Amino acid sequence: MSEFDLIRQLQKIISFEPRPGAHASVVGIGDDAAVLELPPGRQLIVTTDTLVQGVHFSPRTTPGDLGHKSLAVSLSDLASMGAEPAWFFLALTLPGIDSAWTDAFAKGMADLAENTGIELAGGDTTSGPLSITVTALGLVETGQALRRSGAREGDIIVVSGSLGGAAFALKMITAGEVPAAACAEKLHRPDPRLGLGCRLHGLATSCIDLSDGLLADLGHVLHASGKGAEIHLERLPSPECMAKLNETERLELQTGGGDDYELCFTIPRNREPELAVIQRETGIRLTAIGEITASRKLLCIARDGEVCHASRKGYEHLAGDGG
Amino acid sequence: MSEFDLIRQLQKIISFEPRPGAHASVVGIGDDAAVLELPPGRQLIVTTDTLVQGVHFSPRTTPGDLGHKSLAVSLSDLASMGAEPAWFFLALTLPGIDSAWTDAFAKGMADLAENTGIELAGGDTTSGPLSITVTALGLVETGQALRRSGAREGDIIVVSGSLGGAAFALKMITAGEVPAAACAEKLHRPDPRLGLGCRLHGLATSCIDLSDGLLADLGHVLHASGKGAEIHLERLPSPECMAKLNETERLELQTGGGDDYELCFTIPRNREPELAVIQRETGIRLTAIGEITASRKLLCIARDGEVCHASRKGYEHLAGDGG
Repeated sequence: MSEFDLIRQLQKIISFEPRPGAHASVVGIGDDAAVLELPPGRQLIVTTDTLVQGVHFSPRTTPGDLGHKSLAVSLSDLASMGAEPAWFFLALTLPGIDSAWTDAFAKGMADLAENTGIELAGGDTTSGPLSITVTALGLVETGQALRRSGAREGDIIVVSGSLGGAAFALKMITAGEVPAAACAEKLHRPDPRLGLGCRLHGLATSCIDLSDGLLADLGHVLHASGKGAEIHLERLPSPECMAKLNETERLELQTGGGDDYELCFTIPRNREPELAVIQRETGIRLTAIGEITASRKLLCIARDGEVCHASRKGYEHLAGDGG
Repeated sequence: MSEFDLIRQLQKIISFEPRPGAHASVVGIGDDAAVLELPPGRQLIVTTDTLVQGVHFSPRTTPGDLGHKSLAVSLSDLASMGAEPAWFFLALTLPGIDSAWTDAFAKGMADLAENTGIELAGGDTTSGPLSITVTALGLVETGQALRRSGAREGDIIVVSGSLGGAAFALKMITAGEVPAAACAEKLHRPDPRLGLGCRLHGLATSCIDLSDGLLADLGHVLHASGKGAEIHLERLPSPECMAKLNETERLELQTGGGDDYELCFTIPRNREPELAVIQRETGIRLTAIGEITASRKLLCIARDGEVCHASRKGYEHLAGDGG
């Protein structure tokens, strides 16, 4: 099969009737480039992410999961900006032509694309070591994009869903064990929080998606905002599949585990009651886990009131020697 | 060096004062996604291309050439749509951290970015086998994008620059020889025809950039337009560095050689006199090489008037048995 055939095969699978009000491309796949038109009053949100076999996913990852996840990670970035998905571009590098693999990959991607209303508007297929780069384009009302930089002293820090499940699943798989279905789903089929992101306009003062782990990603928000934070470790939401873990192992996964693709955002303290409303509307659990401080330090408060210091990999007791 | 440092290193090198009237990003590198605003009355043109080591370039390609070329191939797609470059996104997969390599790569890319006025607005760096995906975004006046599909019977077919030089350089390098500087430049530092592309609005009925070879790419135009063409082989513009080749070898490179990144476009016959004006304005050689026919066949006319049949790889005599 030639490259041209492969693109058509992918296009055929990853296409669906646009939703009413969706922003269909003017020119999609089949010319030198796509032609897109933005509705008036909107800004364009663009993000690009690469997944490489052996680095971001194991050779045992199913093609369907991979198709889903390689689109989901970019959609999660759109969600964190409060953007509505519009179009995406797929650069797919494959070691060879395997129609069954490609079909399953495209199907996994197509289901998520259809569910989220994002159109495949172009791409490139090349031969080489397996790698997927998705560039996703979304839309926000002008000036409404959620940023990392707006957190203010006293703001409440909120996370969606639960933390650590994806990292726990990965840890089990790496150890040759079989993770519970719910945790495996978190790892392989993350659900980008697009509805929630759009619901946060005019409420969240900052927002980021959790791809590298809570403390690392919250650190980006604090850096961009020039602020600090206190996190209450016992408030961190845990997935049910981690119920049997001891506290140390659980907290390590919740603070340092990547790939959750939940949103972490800040809101003014006086608007905390709105969280319950949004939780009801979106069906997504929202948990206040701490508050923004003026200190420029990220501190974790343990159950016993002990203060721990947050590091890149997670948290450590202040008495610890870094590392 | 961490991924974050690498992005900052790239950003530092690939940044420059925006030109007056340029469309600077609202939010560039440093958040979950870029925020971009289109000027009124414009459509967005988007293209994505991947270069993989060992497939699209040899391990001996210098990082500076690679930085230039990986941006140039996407800019060439913008040129073929008649778009003005605005922003690009760089997904860079590197086998390891090598500051000297990265500096040189970024410098090669930065020079072309500055010369063409395109801003690095985001990206992703990952570890893995060397591969570069560039997604470039350009702007055109609404409805003015040059398409593959508009060629009409009787239109004149025009190519910019010369044909075959890049393929000739690659052939020499593969054979262990040293190509002439001008041909090596065509291969390693292609010059995307952005000014020419923008100049073709309202004139060209179709346009494509030559990445796969004249006959293959012209074939895409004919397919999209539902037309055929006759090409006069003796009119094909040849680079000086191919002057000593025999005719057969030269024609093979001119009709089937890839990587030229020239534009091939069609114009109405009665507007042929404008070519001389555009050639003078842009300083780019323009050559009428044939005409569009209603036949749906792509035929090549040899110097002696013999009609040859165009194939994917180049052309072949009609009496030949395909292959």
